Amino acid sequence: MKELKSITKLIESFSRLPGVGHRSAEKMAYSVLEMLDEDVEMFSSALRELKANIHHCPICGTYTEDEVCEICADDSRDKTKIIVVSYPKDVYSFEKLGVYDGRYHVLGGVLSAVNGVGINDLNIEGLEKRIKEDGVQEIIIATNPTTEGETTALFLAKILEKQNVSVTRLAYGLPMGAHLEYADSLTLSKALEGRKKI
Amino acid sequence: MKELKSITKLIESFSRLPGVGHRSAEKMAYSVLEMLDEDVEMFSSALRELKANIHHCPICGTYTEDEVCEICADDSRDKTKIIVVSYPKDVYSFEKLGVYDGRYHVLGGVLSAVNGVGINDLNIEGLEKRIKEDGVQEIIIATNPTTEGETTALFLAKILEKQNVSVTRLAYGLPMGAHLEYADSLTLSKALEGRKKI
Repeated sequence: MKELKSITKLIESFSRLPGVGHRSAEKMAYSVLEMLDEDVEMFSSALRELKANIHHCPICGTYTEDEVCEICADDSRDKTKIIVVSYPKDVYSFEKLGVYDGRYHVLGGVLSAVNGVGINDLNIEGLEKRIKEDGVQEIIIATNPTTEGETTALFLAKILEKQNVSVTRLAYGLPMGAHLEYADSLTLSKALEGRKKI
Repeated sequence: MKELKSITKLIESFSRLPGVGHRSAEKMAYSVLEMLDEDVEMFSSALRELKANIHHCPICGTYTEDEVCEICADDSRDKTKIIVVSYPKDVYSFEKLGVYDGRYHVLGGVLSAVNGVGINDLNIEGLEKRIKEDGVQEIIIATNPTTEGETTALFLAKILEKQNVSVTRLAYGLPMGAHLEYADSLTLSKALEGRKKI
């Protein structure tokens, strides 16, 4: 007895999600069979509607359901500060803090030889245009602290050198609440390197 | 800036899946945005079709896309042996072994005071009917080795006492490849209790 076709198809789709192996996908597919009809219907339409309703903001590149995203449309946000991130979801991480009143710019990825992502695949031109037109004074680079994120940050800083703008990047160091004994050596050496007077 | 409505809806649906917390659901929802349109479309229809195409086999209670499941429809399978499981997916675990040529019966759950599942919520009547009509000789109870699975097994054995049928259940003991030092005490005591001559 083989698995039913409808189940196999759904397992395949679940397996495509990040962090979901075959066993978990199987569990998920079977759990859908036990769900209420209306919940499955909701799930199915949520998937379909997502792609139809959401697109990239033409100014900053984050996801939006409107013509221009909420932040770009908000005149009360400081136009002279831009946090540059790799992915749209990174914007939400900063917004959750509730302490930043500037704007964002989404590159749309990181430079990566392995994945064939080059300079022209990132939205750098749009950033340069905003710097000129909006009188931007500070660019805060917030790519991930990975090799590729680092490369992208350094490369971007190099490009922006010519512009009359201060370029900073997020501090590296120990995460709050961490224990020294569990910190990896790279993080610890970054924390030492970036030590501050108290 | 709040999360987009379409994303929030999808996160909610993903959160309903077993073993998926809010953070994972968030990750999954954003990954859907990066998927190809046709893959999302496939995912959405797979969900919708699952519930429409699959129902319980009227004989054994497992899932099927046909009128009667593949196993119940297969005359070459031994009608006199029935493995009794709690859930439809348990049938697949046995079928994957490829060594069992008998049939199955799905109870549809376990007795559970907490979840309000009583005798009448399990498909026991159907099993008794099959025992009588098909001349069943052996019932192998294969509920999970949990408190509720155990209770269900004992209860079922009690009911079937009156019938002229041998009732067995799966052996408990150490899983193959296990190390004694890592075995929990309950498993170890079951292994000792069920020791066999070699």
